[in-house]
Amino acid sequence: MAKKKLLVVTGGGDCPGLNAVIRAIVKRAAQSPDWEVWGSIEAYNGLLRTPKEIVLLDSAAVAGIHVRGGTIIKTTNKGGPFSWPVQNPDGSWSAVDRSDELVEILRQEGFQAVISIGGDGSQRISKALYDKGVPIIGVPKTIDNDLAATDFTFGFQTAVQIATESFDRLVSTAESHHRVMIMEVMGRHAGWIALHTAIAGGAEVCLIPEIPYDIHKVAQRLHQRFNNGRGFAHVVIAEGAKPKDGTITARLATEVGYENLRLGGVAYQLSAQLRAAGLTADIRETVLGHVQRGGTPIAFDRVLATQFGVKAFEMVLAEQFGQMVSYRNNTIVSVPLQEAIANYNYVQVDSFLIQTARGVGISFGD
Amino acid sequence: MAKKKLLVVTGGGDCPGLNAVIRAIVKRAAQSPDWEVWGSIEAYNGLLRTPKEIVLLDSAAVAGIHVRGGTIIKTTNKGGPFSWPVQNPDGSWSAVDRSDELVEILRQEGFQAVISIGGDGSQRISKALYDKGVPIIGVPKTIDNDLAATDFTFGFQTAVQIATESFDRLVSTAESHHRVMIMEVMGRHAGWIALHTAIAGGAEVCLIPEIPYDIHKVAQRLHQRFNNGRGFAHVVIAEGAKPKDGTITARLATEVGYENLRLGGVAYQLSAQLRAAGLTADIRETVLGHVQRGGTPIAFDRVLATQFGVKAFEMVLAEQFGQMVSYRNNTIVSVPLQEAIANYNYVQVDSFLIQTARGVGISFGD
Amino acid sequence: MAKKKLLVVTGGGDCPGLNAVIRAIVKRAAQSPDWEVWGSIEAYNGLLRTPKEIVLLDSAAVAGIHVRGGTIIKTTNKGGPFSWPVQNPDGSWSAVDRSDELVEILRQEGFQAVISIGGDGSQRISKALYDKGVPIIGVPKTIDNDLAATDFTFGFQTAVQIATESFDRLVSTAESHHRVMIMEVMGRHAGWIALHTAIAGGAEVCLIPEIPYDIHKVAQRLHQRFNNGRGFAHVVIAEGAKPKDGTITARLATEVGYENLRLGGVAYQLSAQLRAAGLTADIRETVLGHVQRGGTPIAFDRVLATQFGVKAFEMVLAEQFGQMVSYRNNTIVSVPLQEAIANYNYVQVDSFLIQTARGVGISFGD
Amino acid sequence: MAKKKLLVVTGGGDCPGLNAVIRAIVKRAAQSPDWEVWGSIEAYNGLLRTPKEIVLLDSAAVAGIHVRGGTIIKTTNKGGPFSWPVQNPDGSWSAVDRSDELVEILRQEGFQAVISIGGDGSQRISKALYDKGVPIIGVPKTIDNDLAATDFTFGFQTAVQIATESFDRLVSTAESHHRVMIMEVMGRHAGWIALHTAIAGGAEVCLIPEIPYDIHKVAQRLHQRFNNGRGFAHVVIAEGAKPKDGTITARLATEVGYENLRLGGVAYQLSAQLRAAGLTADIRETVLGHVQRGGTPIAFDRVLATQFGVKAFEMVLAEQFGQMVSYRNNTIVSVPLQEAIANYNYVQVDSFLIQTARGVGISFGD
Repeated sequence: MAKKKLLVVTGGGDCPGLNAVIRAIVKRAAQSPDWEVWGSIEAYNGLLRTPKEIVLLDSAAVAGIHVRGGTIIKTTNKGGPFSWPVQNPDGSWSAVDRSDELVEILRQEGFQAVISIGGDGSQRISKALYDKGVPIIGVPKTIDNDLAATDFTFGFQTAVQIATESFDRLVSTAESHHRVMIMEVMGRHAGWIALHTAIAGGAEVCLIPEIPYDIHKVAQRLHQRFNNGRGFAHVVIAEGAKPKDGTITARLATEVGYENLRLGGVAYQLSAQLRAAGLTADIRETVLGHVQRGGTPIAFDRVLATQFGVKAFEMVLAEQFGQMVSYRNNTIVSVPLQEAIANYNYVQVDSFLIQTARGVGISFGD
Repeated sequence: MAKKKLLVVTGGGDCPGLNAVIRAIVKRAAQSPDWEVWGSIEAYNGLLRTPKEIVLLDSAAVAGIHVRGGTIIKTTNKGGPFSWPVQNPDGSWSAVDRSDELVEILRQEGFQAVISIGGDGSQRISKALYDKGVPIIGVPKTIDNDLAATDFTFGFQTAVQIATESFDRLVSTAESHHRVMIMEVMGRHAGWIALHTAIAGGAEVCLIPEIPYDIHKVAQRLHQRFNNGRGFAHVVIAEGAKPKDGTITARLATEVGYENLRLGGVAYQLSAQLRAAGLTADIRETVLGHVQRGGTPIAFDRVLATQFGVKAFEMVLAEQFGQMVSYRNNTIVSVPLQEAIANYNYVQVDSFLIQTARGVGISFGD
Repeated sequence: MAKKKLLVVTGGGDCPGLNAVIRAIVKRAAQSPDWEVWGSIEAYNGLLRTPKEIVLLDSAAVAGIHVRGGTIIKTTNKGGPFSWPVQNPDGSWSAVDRSDELVEILRQEGFQAVISIGGDGSQRISKALYDKGVPIIGVPKTIDNDLAATDFTFGFQTAVQIATESFDRLVSTAESHHRVMIMEVMGRHAGWIALHTAIAGGAEVCLIPEIPYDIHKVAQRLHQRFNNGRGFAHVVIAEGAKPKDGTITARLATEVGYENLRLGGVAYQLSAQLRAAGLTADIRETVLGHVQRGGTPIAFDRVLATQFGVKAFEMVLAEQFGQMVSYRNNTIVSVPLQEAIANYNYVQVDSFLIQTARGVGISFGD
Repeated sequence: MAKKKLLVVTGGGDCPGLNAVIRAIVKRAAQSPDWEVWGSIEAYNGLLRTPKEIVLLDSAAVAGIHVRGGTIIKTTNKGGPFSWPVQNPDGSWSAVDRSDELVEILRQEGFQAVISIGGDGSQRISKALYDKGVPIIGVPKTIDNDLAATDFTFGFQTAVQIATESFDRLVSTAESHHRVMIMEVMGRHAGWIALHTAIAGGAEVCLIPEIPYDIHKVAQRLHQRFNNGRGFAHVVIAEGAKPKDGTITARLATEVGYENLRLGGVAYQLSAQLRAAGLTADIRETVLGHVQRGGTPIAFDRVLATQFGVKAFEMVLAEQFGQMVSYRNNTIVSVPLQEAIANYNYVQVDSFLIQTARGVGISFGD
């Protein structure tokens, strides 16, 4: 008898733990002999290409993958069923909606369920496909911890751990040399990685998107530590951190050619701003970049990802479509996709975590 | 004007994150200029010795300690105010109750609050001292995650991470050599470390105190993987795991001299049992021991420990004595000490975590 | 035109870096288009089995394997062409010499060169096959660093690093608790891993096969640190460390049932001996076991293994058969296989490394 | 009787292992009861300041420091006895020679020997002081491995290990996303860290100061991997890597504003150059910065540093002044300071290490 077919896709930015989710789905499905699991390469793109790029995911395919970063079925930030790029005769590009075509392909291929592992953008697509009748279940993924419908997702704690280990290394060398160390971490809209790293590492300053900073207050705080020429200090800055309106004055921008530094990352921008604001201490920059998104997930994330994968398949069995897996109150539950995409999870300025950071002397430059 | 004095003690087994709690208390207290923080060496023993061993904990004393394992004010499993060891004239030892004397010393020294960081045993002492009028606040600590009144404590995730990294290393060598690898981890009464490690690492068998194992079922499961002479397998066993009654027959014990192996740790015992049960594959043992309790805490535990420390001091300010800090539903709250010591946190055999483990093919030998 | 065929085999115990050697051979061979590389599974066993187990090793097969432990063509400590196990009619086992058959198979399969990656035992086989006319080149491999013909081999530094990281974790917890920590590491005949770990970690006692220990001197040294009840101490012991003749007296053996402890590993034996010798401090044991042999090699070993692989293939091109790759005086050279198997590399008791260890206060119990 | 006084100083950039050298000197000196060891803060600056900043280095002062990065007696790149900065009346700065004063202070303080741990610049000072009669011994230190008089120094392998671990993390995410990852590592004049990391990690391109690159060849090599839109690639670039003369044309510079990017680090410069040269693939940058110089040294470096420290003190006992400790041909020797400062240790373009890199397919863009 023909087996029931389940499709798994991974979309959006890379995140340690994706492979652990895939493995858990496949291993759990192996206990339900009437199911088989397929993966589409680069989210739905594999299904929309000619020839199709889909792969059977059996136990051999997933053996040992939970310790590896990346995703064996690849991921993408580009394209997608609702905005497929096509080149116009004049060479320019447009986006076309191929979602109805995708729904038809899923039907033709006989997929009776879809599990979509991805972040905010991916789950919006999940919701839209569900509204078109696709039996879909979401698994939340975000390195930045910016999804409101789940307390945590896999990958985030790994990113924090990587950033913290790098921070630890900076501490000893800053201390020996009397320096200001600036470390730039991920977080375009939410400052969770920066905030956790600053607390775990023991930074003096933490700059996050949710709390615009006054460069003069930052410089002043650092100056305090250096006023006798002996101190050292560490700044963790999220890539999306922004100065308060009017703080970077025209004079400041002119002096350091601030505008010209946009390509160098916020760590270099902050460095220039601090020099312009009068800080004379040596400053050194570290930009971790995608080091935070790759490699072996820590155990915490593997356990969480494995729970998500098993739960997602059991939701398939229970036909809980239109729902997303979620980690809430220390257990695994499901929430409507609608709820999952309704809100971002920003750092709340009056949260106990911010209170903790201030409590151990971390300044946010506000 | 004289400052208010806060006493901090750490008791029970070592646990990564203790120093991060101490640092957070001291740094938070530094923002309340009318307080000063003292530490008693080896829990309350420092106060009960002559001369007293207590140290002032100022900012310099706690600089950078959050990244280090151990506790700068040392800890102990021995003695304590309610059972202080004294040697009798005939050389034997008795325990005497010095708790009233301790209460008096605390009063004489002018301590207006006590924060006790420790596990089940330590918090029982906290409760008893609170009942005698000591203004005390508890901070939960257990490497084994066996306290029911908090979802997590610091140290546990570090232990799991250490065990998982070792497990990862065993995988490649088992695969190259067709071997059974047995890894013994901590967990005398609760199997949390073993369970998390087995899921994170991808073990075939996980043996925990909560689920007594049938050695023949374990051997059978391993034999399956080896029936063509090509497999390999990994077993994670908690130090407190026990065979089912009657499973280790007299014949088995006689053949392998099981009784004689008690000193070698459960990994070696299991190895002998498996050979006696007919498993012919090569078996190798790893006993991590106190490696799991020491060294730099992972970022997760540092953030949690720092939150606990800040919260504990703010509870002092709010005079919430007789309470314990707790991490529940992804936030930091306080619970009565009474509640904290009423229940253990065992692995529930019908929990989703056990379901997850079974879902990815882990056998518990039951 | 038919390509020239090169065979690669890995033999003996597992060792981080094996895959890096294989990858380097294959990638270097890809620049010589008239060669192709094959691997036999489990050393020569794959060629001697029916059906044969050999695999083509092309660029795809080796992509990314240099970061992984183990060996993709598996290894074995059993069998081999000169002592192949066969079962007699009565169920017992004998060993037969199938080396002439192997030489014939190599000829028939058209292998024009063989690279054998392995330790002392494997290179003895290499030499014997070379004497039978096989065009063979050796690559030295030993986790224990016990090959005299090369200053270093890959894998050893990884083992030392793993052991040292575990040692570091033990330090903080020993310090908080006043304990003696015993860590057992690999080294059946040579104490290199123990010696390097003891220096890198900062042990008080290091016990190695080359220097038999007096248990009373060991106990005395540890007692010194504990004479006021406040100290802590660390012992690193190689699995092949032995007490001096007559040190473990009959009385000692009787009291602790020393003979019964053989299966528990030398760490547990030493622990019992120390208690019998009167040490009253708490003792805790760690047995790393195969954790030392597996997982990702450190960069040092990957660079060395990659150099070995490239050199080995270039020796094939230069037809330098009967030779072994060697790292000497900070460069890569070749030495006769004869020389490679003539001598072991024991720790010299008058070497500067031992002098260094004694210089920083490490006792060898002698 | 008054003890003989030994002075220890650390100069130049930070380097993991400095503390291990200091600890080894002090522990070894503790076995020669007529010596005591002192440290001057920030190289000789501590002796030249008023009041003097010098500290007694006894066993308690160095307990456990070998696992920590940095240097407990601090270091500096500024000042020094031969070019001490003084401010002129008009606010500008001049450098004055205070070396004769330093020699006099050393005599007055009764230092009978000096051990100077430092790089090329520090050892030039050592040589100059030795020529003025100071009984001095050098210990080589360079994160960049650019000292010719020693095969290796401590710290370098730690830097390579840190860079390689980051590289490993980039691999999985690049693979999932089809990206070019550029990782900038240290190496202003010598490309050792970049070269070792590229081999250990498995890069496609490695750019080092010793081999100026042709940006079009680099782009071409990367384009090859991407010509079907599916590949990914990794570039390791040393901070001192330079394009060949004439390669970065005026047009290129104009288009990308190359000159404006100087402050952003060479990773960002290369990224802009590649885009200008027509590479359309996504590019992401990582700049490790001082993360490479800090934190716990790996075991290899601790063992080497400990040997250096013990050797240095034994050279003091043997009065081998004017000499420097050196690791050569797998043993510890001494070489004249004169020789130590005569030559740099650049990567030789015809060395076997470069041959190895090319052998596994790494392009240098030449």
